Amino acid sequence: MCEPLEIEDFGVQPMEDASPPKWHLAHTTWFFETFVLKPFVAGYRPVNDQFEHLFNSYYNGVGEPFPRPRRGFLSRPTVAEILAYRQRVDADVQRLLDSLADDGGPAVQQSNGAVRDGSREDVLSRVVLGVHHGQQHQELLLTDLKYNFGHNPLFPCYGQAAPPEQAPDPLVYIENGGGARQVGACAAGSAFCFDNELPRHEVLVHPFRLANRLVTNGEYLAFMNDNGYQQPHLWLSEGWAHQQQQGWAAPLYWRRRDGEWFEYRLDGLHPLRLDLPVVHVSAFEAFAYAGWAGARLPTEFEWEAAAQGSEPDGNFVEAGYYHPGACRSEGGRTGQLDQLYGDVWQWTASSYAPYPGYRPLPGTLGEYNGKFMSSQLVLRGASCATPRSHARESYRNFFYPPDRWQFSGIRLAQDV
Amino acid sequence: MCEPLEIEDFGVQPMEDASPPKWHLAHTTWFFETFVLKPFVAGYRPVNDQFEHLFNSYYNGVGEPFPRPRRGFLSRPTVAEILAYRQRVDADVQRLLDSLADDGGPAVQQSNGAVRDGSREDVLSRVVLGVHHGQQHQELLLTDLKYNFGHNPLFPCYGQAAPPEQAPDPLVYIENGGGARQVGACAAGSAFCFDNELPRHEVLVHPFRLANRLVTNGEYLAFMNDNGYQQPHLWLSEGWAHQQQQGWAAPLYWRRRDGEWFEYRLDGLHPLRLDLPVVHVSAFEAFAYAGWAGARLPTEFEWEAAAQGSEPDGNFVEAGYYHPGACRSEGGRTGQLDQLYGDVWQWTASSYAPYPGYRPLPGTLGEYNGKFMSSQLVLRGASCATPRSHARESYRNFFYPPDRWQFSGIRLAQDV
Amino acid sequence: MCEPLEIEDFGVQPMEDASPPKWHLAHTTWFFETFVLKPFVAGYRPVNDQFEHLFNSYYNGVGEPFPRPRRGFLSRPTVAEILAYRQRVDADVQRLLDSLADDGGPAVQQSNGAVRDGSREDVLSRVVLGVHHGQQHQELLLTDLKYNFGHNPLFPCYGQAAPPEQAPDPLVYIENGGGARQVGACAAGSAFCFDNELPRHEVLVHPFRLANRLVTNGEYLAFMNDNGYQQPHLWLSEGWAHQQQQGWAAPLYWRRRDGEWFEYRLDGLHPLRLDLPVVHVSAFEAFAYAGWAGARLPTEFEWEAAAQGSEPDGNFVEAGYYHPGACRSEGGRTGQLDQLYGDVWQWTASSYAPYPGYRPLPGTLGEYNGKFMSSQLVLRGASCATPRSHARESYRNFFYPPDRWQFSGIRLAQDV
Amino acid sequence: MCEPLEIEDFGVQPMEDASPPKWHLAHTTWFFETFVLKPFVAGYRPVNDQFEHLFNSYYNGVGEPFPRPRRGFLSRPTVAEILAYRQRVDADVQRLLDSLADDGGPAVQQSNGAVRDGSREDVLSRVVLGVHHGQQHQELLLTDLKYNFGHNPLFPCYGQAAPPEQAPDPLVYIENGGGARQVGACAAGSAFCFDNELPRHEVLVHPFRLANRLVTNGEYLAFMNDNGYQQPHLWLSEGWAHQQQQGWAAPLYWRRRDGEWFEYRLDGLHPLRLDLPVVHVSAFEAFAYAGWAGARLPTEFEWEAAAQGSEPDGNFVEAGYYHPGACRSEGGRTGQLDQLYGDVWQWTASSYAPYPGYRPLPGTLGEYNGKFMSSQLVLRGASCATPRSHARESYRNFFYPPDRWQFSGIRLAQDV
Repeated sequence: MCEPLEIEDFGVQPMEDASPPKWHLAHTTWFFETFVLKPFVAGYRPVNDQFEHLFNSYYNGVGEPFPRPRRGFLSRPTVAEILAYRQRVDADVQRLLDSLADDGGPAVQQSNGAVRDGSREDVLSRVVLGVHHGQQHQELLLTDLKYNFGHNPLFPCYGQAAPPEQAPDPLVYIENGGGARQVGACAAGSAFCFDNELPRHEVLVHPFRLANRLVTNGEYLAFMNDNGYQQPHLWLSEGWAHQQQQGWAAPLYWRRRDGEWFEYRLDGLHPLRLDLPVVHVSAFEAFAYAGWAGARLPTEFEWEAAAQGSEPDGNFVEAGYYHPGACRSEGGRTGQLDQLYGDVWQWTASSYAPYPGYRPLPGTLGEYNGKFMSSQLVLRGASCATPRSHARESYRNFFYPPDRWQFSGIRLAQDV
Repeated sequence: MCEPLEIEDFGVQPMEDASPPKWHLAHTTWFFETFVLKPFVAGYRPVNDQFEHLFNSYYNGVGEPFPRPRRGFLSRPTVAEILAYRQRVDADVQRLLDSLADDGGPAVQQSNGAVRDGSREDVLSRVVLGVHHGQQHQELLLTDLKYNFGHNPLFPCYGQAAPPEQAPDPLVYIENGGGARQVGACAAGSAFCFDNELPRHEVLVHPFRLANRLVTNGEYLAFMNDNGYQQPHLWLSEGWAHQQQQGWAAPLYWRRRDGEWFEYRLDGLHPLRLDLPVVHVSAFEAFAYAGWAGARLPTEFEWEAAAQGSEPDGNFVEAGYYHPGACRSEGGRTGQLDQLYGDVWQWTASSYAPYPGYRPLPGTLGEYNGKFMSSQLVLRGASCATPRSHARESYRNFFYPPDRWQFSGIRLAQDV
Repeated sequence: MCEPLEIEDFGVQPMEDASPPKWHLAHTTWFFETFVLKPFVAGYRPVNDQFEHLFNSYYNGVGEPFPRPRRGFLSRPTVAEILAYRQRVDADVQRLLDSLADDGGPAVQQSNGAVRDGSREDVLSRVVLGVHHGQQHQELLLTDLKYNFGHNPLFPCYGQAAPPEQAPDPLVYIENGGGARQVGACAAGSAFCFDNELPRHEVLVHPFRLANRLVTNGEYLAFMNDNGYQQPHLWLSEGWAHQQQQGWAAPLYWRRRDGEWFEYRLDGLHPLRLDLPVVHVSAFEAFAYAGWAGARLPTEFEWEAAAQGSEPDGNFVEAGYYHPGACRSEGGRTGQLDQLYGDVWQWTASSYAPYPGYRPLPGTLGEYNGKFMSSQLVLRGASCATPRSHARESYRNFFYPPDRWQFSGIRLAQDV
Repeated sequence: MCEPLEIEDFGVQPMEDASPPKWHLAHTTWFFETFVLKPFVAGYRPVNDQFEHLFNSYYNGVGEPFPRPRRGFLSRPTVAEILAYRQRVDADVQRLLDSLADDGGPAVQQSNGAVRDGSREDVLSRVVLGVHHGQQHQELLLTDLKYNFGHNPLFPCYGQAAPPEQAPDPLVYIENGGGARQVGACAAGSAFCFDNELPRHEVLVHPFRLANRLVTNGEYLAFMNDNGYQQPHLWLSEGWAHQQQQGWAAPLYWRRRDGEWFEYRLDGLHPLRLDLPVVHVSAFEAFAYAGWAGARLPTEFEWEAAAQGSEPDGNFVEAGYYHPGACRSEGGRTGQLDQLYGDVWQWTASSYAPYPGYRPLPGTLGEYNGKFMSSQLVLRGASCATPRSHARESYRNFFYPPDRWQFSGIRLAQDV
C-alpha cells in the first residue's frame, strides 16, 4: 500500500482526526510491541523508549499519549527509522510465535515487571487482535491520505484504476418481516470478533423494507439541485447548524469547476460519475437525504437481520479501485440486496452503544472500544478500502455524525 | 414563580444554553400567538411584529429566530411590556376558547392568509400542547435562574425551604425479569403525550436489576475521594476530554470553602448534605460513577418497564423545595422502587432516537422534537422543578451528555 | 444621565469590552471607596466585602477582579442597592472632605491596617483623580449603552435631540510648519492631567498639513461605493484580515434597509445624514479611508502641535445630542481648524507609548495607565459624549485598532 | 543550509506563523519568477500554473494565496520537484542577467500581458531585492525548523557546534547624549535598503544610557526565581493575559527535567548555560524583565543613535553556531557597546510605524512592508541566524509582541 507514496506523503496530518501514514505504520507496530512483546517476552527491551509515548494512540493505561493534533509535526523518526522499527518488532513477534510451537507457552513478564503465567492462547489471541487492528489502520491510512491529496490543489493520484462504468440498477425496496432475531458475534472459539460485537443476544426487529442498493451520485445530485442543503426542515438541528457553520454544499470531495461537478477519487480529479454510489457524506447528510427521499436510515439490527446469511462479497481494497463501484447485480429485478459489503460503509440510525451484558477486554485493552460508546453512530458493511477478511455481518464500525472522510455512504430503509 | 425575583433577575442569560426568565415568559406567550391565535383567529393582528423574530426559539418554519446567545442583551421589551403581552394573548386565547363552546368551530385563517377549515379539536389540541410547552419552560426558567444565582458570588436565595433531613435508605438492587414489553404512550384519545413518546410499541427487555433509590451526595463524595475525577479508565473518552478541558472536579453547584464542601441550592449556599441525592451531574459523570460503583445506567426501556404501574408521586415543584429530597420510603427493606418521579431526572444509557414508525407533528410543529434526535441521551422520571401533572411513565426528557444545569441525577442498574 | 433608562437597561453587557451601566455606577463608587476611604478614613468598614471583588476593574494590586466578560451576569446587587452604595460612599467622601477643612489632615489608615501620615494634598489629589475617572466612565456608560440599544432590533431611543442640519464646509488642508515643539501636560501644580500626559517634553515635528474638519458620512459613503471594503491594497494586513473575518462592510451603526442606508443614533434609527461626521469606525477603517483619499492619519504630536493655543470648544456631552454634529465654522474659508474637540475622538497614527521619562503613579494606582501601553493607538480631541471639562490639548485617549464602539472618527493629514 | 535535513523535515509547519522548509525554498523562487521573470522576460511561461497560488505568501495583488495555516499539508510538490523548480528559475534569471550585459535592457512584458519599457536598473533592483528577500527567508527557515525540532520529544540536532564558554562581562550602562540625529537609510544610489528604512530623517533623541551587552540566561533565571512570571505588576496588561493563558513560565526552548533547566539549541538539548544571552523571549517578557531590573527597553532610535559608526560585527549565521554566544569583548571595562549585531535581535520599545514621508514601493511590491505597520514592534541588530551582509544600523526587523520563535533577546536601557 505504501508503494505509490513519496516520502513527503508519509508525514502529513491534514486534520486533527487523521494521522500521517508513517504514524499508522509506527502505531500498529507499537501495538504488537506493547501488548505482545512487552508482556510475553521475558526481558524485552523496547526499540526506543520514546516510541511508547509517540505512538500510543489513546491507551491511558500505558502512559500519556503524544497529543493527537501534533502527530504531523514529527518529522523524526524518519520513514526509514519507522520501517526498521517495524522489521525489528515483526521479527520478534515471529520469534515468539515460533517458540510457542515448541512448548506450552512463553515465560511471561507483565509490563509492571511482575512475571505471570501465560498461555499459548493468550499470545495468539493478542497477535490476532493486532492483525485486525492493523487492518483497521490500513483503511485509515487510505482515508487519511485521501484527505491530504484531495485538499492539495495538485490533486495527486494514488492509483490509476477507475471502477467500471455501469448503468445503475433501479432502486427498489425489499421487505423484511423482522421479528425476534439473534444479533452479534458468535460464541468464543469461532472466528475473531471485537468485544463490541458481543454478547450475541436477541432483539425485536419490527417489519421494515430495505433498499436493494446504495444511493448514487446522480440521486444525491437531484437532492442538491432541489436545494437540499438550503432547507432546514430536512435536517437534524445539529446537522443544520454544522453544515451552515462549515459551509457544506456537497459531499466532501466534490469540486465545482466552471459550472460542472467533479469528484476527487484516489485516481485523480474527474467529472462526477452519476452511476457511482455517493460517498464521503456525513450522517447529517445521510439523514437529510433520506428524509428528502421519503425514506429513513436503517437501524443496525435491521441491516444485520437483512444481511444474515449472505457471504461478504463485493468491492474491497483488494480490487484496487479504492473507490465504490456501480451496482453490479440484478437485485432490482430479482429482489436481492446488493452492495451490502464493500463500496461504502453504510450509516445507520443506531447510536454506538454497548450490547446488553457487554464486557470490555480486561486491562488496558479494555480501552479499545468501550470508551468510545457516546455520541457516535454505527456504520455497517465495509468499504472499498476494507480488506475482504475484515468484513462480517456483525461488524460495527462507528464514527461521529459530522464525519465525512471515511468511505461512508447511504442505504435507505422504510417502515412497512 | 416570578414573585421572588427582582426586575434585574429577569434579563440575565448566564450561558448560551440558558435563557433569561423574561424570555421564557415571552416565548411561551409567542407559542400561543403563533400556533393558536394566528391560524385560528380571523384577522388576528400580532401585538408587535418584532416579537415573532425575538421570541421564536428554533422554529425555522416561522422565520429566522433571533440568535440564541444574544437573548440576554435584550433589555427591551421590558418586563412590564412582556407581562402586558402575556395578558393580551392570554385574553385572546380565552376568548377563542369561549367562542368554541358556542358553535362548532372558529373561522380559521392560516398564517399565509389563506382561510382553512378548522375544528374545535384542532384548537384544543394546540392549546393543550401550549400548556405542556409552558410547563417545560417553567422548569427551564428555574434551572436557568439557578445557573445565574449559583454563579453570583452573592449566592442569592430564591426560596427558603430546605428538604427535610432523613437518613438515607440502604441502596439495594431490585430484580426485574424483563421480557417483551409495551412501551411508549397510549393511543390517541387518551391523555396528552408528546410525539416522541409514540408510537407505543413492543421492545425486548433483558432481565436486569434496578437500584431502589437515587445515588446520594455521600456516595458521590466517596467516588470523588477515591480520585474518581482523576482516573481516565472510569470515563468515556469524550467525558474524560470534556472534564479535563473544563476542569470539573465536582457536581456543578458544589463549592469548596476552607476545605469543606458546600452546595448551592435555591435556598442559598449551605454545607453539603450527604443524605440528599446528588444532582446537577452530567451523563459523563453518571457513567463514570456507575462504573466505579460496579453498576451501569439503566436503558430508558428498563426504567419504563420498572416504572409501569406506579403512580407518579414524589417531590415535584409544588412541594416548594426546588431541590431533591432524601429517600422517603422503606424501599430498601420492602423491595420497592423509590424516587422514580420528582427529585431528579435520571440519566439513562439510551440515546434519544425515534421510536419505530415515529412521525413528527405536521407542519412547523414538527420541529418540536424530531430534529433534536442526535447526540442526546434520554432522561426519565421528573425533577423537583417539574409540575406533578407533567410527569408520566412514557415521558422522554433529553439533554446532551455534558449538560449539568438541569436537575439531573443518577439511578444505578446492573445486569442479572 | 440615567434618567432615560429602564431598570432592565442597567444590567446588559452586550460584548466583552463593554460593561453594564450599573457596573459603571458601582465601579466609580468602588474607586472612591478603595483609593480614598479605605486609606484615609481610620477604621473605615466597607459597605459590602464582596464589592471589592465585584467592582474592581483591573487593579491586580487590590485582589483578583471578578471576570470582566461576566459582569452582565450579576443581576444582584440590584440597581437600588448600587445607588444606596453610591450614596453611602459619596456621603463618606463628603465627610472626609469636610474634615480636611477643619485641620491639617485626616487620620490615615492603609488598607493593610497600618496607620500612616497623610496630608490634605494626598486626599484631594485622589478625589480629583476619582472625579476624572468618573468622567471617563460616564462616557463609557453612554457608548456601552449605545452598543446595547444599537444591536436591539427595537432600536430604543436614549434622547430625542438630533444635531442641527448644516451643509458641510469644504475640506481643505491647513499647513503647519512643525519644528521642535513642547508637548504633554504642564508641570505639577497646574490643572489636572493623567500620568500618561507627562512629562512635558520636546519633540521634532516635520512640516505637515491637517484637514480643517472631520470626514463626513457622505465622503465615507463615496469610499464604500468605490469598493473600499473590497480592495485589500487599501488596508493594513491586520485590518484586512479583521474586516474579512468580521464581515464588516460599513461603520458599526449603519444599517441597510431596502437599499437605503440608515444610522442608529442615540435618538433612534434614521436615514443616514451625509452632512454628519462619520463615527464608530475602527482605526483600520480610518487608515484605509485615508489612503483611499490620498491622505494619511496625523500623528498625535501633529495633532497636538496644531491644537496648541485653541480653547477646547465644541459639541460635548452637555449639548445633549450624544452624536457628532456637522462642521459649524467657516474654517474652509478662513484657514482655521474646526471640530478639534467634541464630536468624535480622532484616530492618530501614533501607538500609545510612554513619554520619555514617564513614571506611573506610585502603588496600585500605577496600574491606571501604564500597563496598557501596547498594541493600542492614541486618539485625540474629545467626543459628543465627553464632558467639556474633560477635554484638553494634551489628553491621550487610547483604544485598540479594531475598536469601533467609541465615538471615533477621522481627521486627515498629509505630508507637505 | 539544507544539508543536515532529512526529506521528512522539509514538509513540517509546526505552527501557523511558521512555514515548512520546502515552502521557503519554493516561495523565494516564486518571488524571482513573479517579480523578475514574468514582467521582464517576453513570453515567459511559468514552471507550473499552480505554483503562483501555492507559493504566494501574502501579495493580494498577484491573486489569492494558498491559506498560510495549510502550507504543511502540501506533501506535493516534493522536495525534488521544488529543487528542480529552483534550478529552472535560477537559470532563467541568470540568462536574463546575462542578456542585460549585452544591450540596454530586456523586452518587457507585464503580468497583465501589456508590454512596457523596462531598464537594466529595473531588473537589477528587483534581483537585488530578491536576494535580500531570500536572506530573510533563510533566517526564517532556521527559526521555523528550530520550532519543529524543539517541540519533538526526540530533540533532533541540526548542527554540532556550541558557542564557546566564556565568563559574562559585567553589565554596565553607557551614557549617550542624544540630541537631533539623522536616522534611516542613505539616499538612493548607495547600498541596498528596504523601503521601511526610508526616508532618512531627523529625530530628537533624549539623553539615555544603554547596556553594554545583552541580558544573559543567568540574569533571566534570577528574574524567574524572583517569581517574575507570577507578579502581574511587572507585566503589560496584554502580556500578563497572554502568558497566563499560554501558561508561560520560561523562555520558549527552556525545558525542566528533574528540577534542572535545560535549553534546546540547534545542537540539541543541553543543560542551561548561564553565560549565554537569553533568547526566544517575547517582547512581553522583555518588558517585564526590564522593569524588574530597574531599566527599560531602548527605542529604535536610541539603538540606532548608539550604533552609528560601528561596523556590523558579531556572531552571524556564517559562524555556524546557530545560537547566540557569550559576550566576547571587554566592553564592561572599556565603555564600549558589545553584541550590537549577531547573537539576537533586540526588542525595542518602538512600534513599527512608517517614517515621516514614507512611500511604499510601487505596484504589488508595495505590499512588502507597509501593510504590516500595525501592532508590531521593531527589533534592531541581527541574530546568529542572519547573514552578515544582511545586517546594518538602519535595519528594522518587526514582530508581534507575543512572538518568541525568532532569535529575539534583550538589551536594557535607562533614562539619564
